[in-house]
Amino acid sequence: MTDKPRILTGDTPSGNLHLGHWVGSIENRVALQSDYDCFFLIANMHAFTKRAERVGEIQRYTLDMVKDWLAAGIDPDRCTLVLQSEVPAITELSWYFAMLLPFNRVMRNPTLKSELEQDDVGDVYSFGFPLYTVGQCADILAFRPDLVPVGEDQVAHIEMTREVARRFNTVYCGVDSHTEDKDFVKAGGLFPIPQVKVGRVGRLVGIDGKAKMSKSLNNAIYLTDSPKQIKKKIGQIYTGRQSLDEPGDTSNTLFEYVRTFIADEARVRELEDKYAKGDNIGDGHIKAEIADEINTMLEPMRARRAELEGEAGDRKVIDLLKQHARKANAVTEETFYLAKQAMGIDYGRRELKPGQ
Amino acid sequence: MTDKPRILTGDTPSGNLHLGHWVGSIENRVALQSDYDCFFLIANMHAFTKRAERVGEIQRYTLDMVKDWLAAGIDPDRCTLVLQSEVPAITELSWYFAMLLPFNRVMRNPTLKSELEQDDVGDVYSFGFPLYTVGQCADILAFRPDLVPVGEDQVAHIEMTREVARRFNTVYCGVDSHTEDKDFVKAGGLFPIPQVKVGRVGRLVGIDGKAKMSKSLNNAIYLTDSPKQIKKKIGQIYTGRQSLDEPGDTSNTLFEYVRTFIADEARVRELEDKYAKGDNIGDGHIKAEIADEINTMLEPMRARRAELEGEAGDRKVIDLLKQHARKANAVTEETFYLAKQAMGIDYGRRELKPGQ
Repeated sequence: MTDKPRILTGDTPSGNLHLGHWVGSIENRVALQSDYDCFFLIANMHAFTKRAERVGEIQRYTLDMVKDWLAAGIDPDRCTLVLQSEVPAITELSWYFAMLLPFNRVMRNPTLKSELEQDDVGDVYSFGFPLYTVGQCADILAFRPDLVPVGEDQVAHIEMTREVARRFNTVYCGVDSHTEDKDFVKAGGLFPIPQVKVGRVGRLVGIDGKAKMSKSLNNAIYLTDSPKQIKKKIGQIYTGRQSLDEPGDTSNTLFEYVRTFIADEARVRELEDKYAKGDNIGDGHIKAEIADEINTMLEPMRARRAELEGEAGDRKVIDLLKQHARKANAVTEETFYLAKQAMGIDYGRRELKPGQ
Repeated sequence: MTDKPRILTGDTPSGNLHLGHWVGSIENRVALQSDYDCFFLIANMHAFTKRAERVGEIQRYTLDMVKDWLAAGIDPDRCTLVLQSEVPAITELSWYFAMLLPFNRVMRNPTLKSELEQDDVGDVYSFGFPLYTVGQCADILAFRPDLVPVGEDQVAHIEMTREVARRFNTVYCGVDSHTEDKDFVKAGGLFPIPQVKVGRVGRLVGIDGKAKMSKSLNNAIYLTDSPKQIKKKIGQIYTGRQSLDEPGDTSNTLFEYVRTFIADEARVRELEDKYAKGDNIGDGHIKAEIADEINTMLEPMRARRAELEGEAGDRKVIDLLKQHARKANAVTEETFYLAKQAMGIDYGRRELKPGQ
């Protein structure tokens, strides 16, 4: 146990991580793990919303994502990795939370609506699709975190989580519904109303300059890309600029990358200044500088990633996930038992030992 | 373990059982427990669909219902009582089944639709309401039963369960989708496609003669009613008949009760004959005969029920439920582990010891 404030966040495994994940959340997580008690969820059950008929991919993506996390600097000695399918209390809490959420409230969730409009969902979606938004409330609240760092597209989900937490606290813990969010636990509520923390770049545009970086849009730079691939991909960023002395628009995609990936702020200002004036500066030069910065950042990740390659790496990751499932369940079993007591369905506390 | 075919059925706790429950299902269960390996589910998690804000009632109704079951002749030495909230694999299977069921398929379930139209649900229902229909598939399939004895209003639910079982078997166990229902397990499927068995009186009309016997309509005779109460309630059945020699309609409510509760078939024929002719037979006489038969049937139940009264009885029932939770989880944990293996999310088999 620790006195540090607790964080819960995570991702649905969808393959290798790209720079959008890094700036949107992973970088944030790596930074937070010294000062917070961090739980990082691998939402492999949510992955069934899109891949129920291609489950082989889910297992592969799970391992690849965790490898990328560890390579990126997520430190398993300082945080807890939570493999969702191995934590029954999450699913059970989802059930009870579903009873507290009006049907129309769930279906009108803006994050859900925009997801259902995406092409890859298709016309026929499963009942599990809206269910997963309720499940996300349980993913979070099972850990009773103080803070939830997420990408900005997830803020609406978290708002629903906060509603459920307030509702549970008022219905089952007898807390006055006018209590301020920060005071619910003090007033006897089981669940803190978690705060949202959005990463420094909420939304990184892809190298096509058109949409959010995304695997399915083929506009992504992966953490596992080689230096050569990265140089090539950055080279594809289109600006329309023709010469070294043509004044450039520093609100373009290229400069979004400059500001996101060049760490030296003075250098960023200098580049912006020269670019705006068309002061003898070429797109190619700027692109090379961005690619260099990205490669410098990724280099230690590549080294860590190399140690996790192949089947031996798979086994290492699986062992780690099993080991961490114990730590995760220690927390969620406690939450769930307290929740059952609050709901008046206490038939003794069960003992759960995850698979080893 | 036993070679007997397996049965799963159950009820959502909604208080004391009435004669509609008896003829619709309980009588059937008592008869089946010698020849089948019976699992009887107390769906206390489903009770949250209507009582999420009145959970005290759920606990009370759970104990009352189990007491009625035991009084009615459900034999805990020959069957397994399954308290739903203590069986995590049910909720977890619900999640994965939700991923296999199209959203519109769930929402168009005729049983769900008619339930949502009932007054006591109100305009605002929770997301948990449609979720429970998916949960019901898991209630059943977690036990991989051969047979599901239910009331006829539940047949549509079971049809969805059968669909899920087929789908799981084809998607995750590689069984050909054209396989005949009876052959799915033989062909490598995890789930048998359970058969439905409707009780001898699918739907008993209440003493008001208007609607199905139901607690909320105040037209029910309870298994716990005293001989005097039963006489009085049967006396309230309205026929409109004026004299001993007025020919009567043997399709009326009174004769539904005659045929349901008078065991001697020759006597039933005789009564029908005299009533149709108006052969010196009064409604009062017939009512007394029905009440006597019901009371004779209920007498041994009253004796058994008396041993379970009060707090001592509550404790006995709670102990029994905890004990049986072990037996139930032994089966469902096996099913769930096999299901996870089939879905490619096997991270080792967990150990679960329910609360004691």
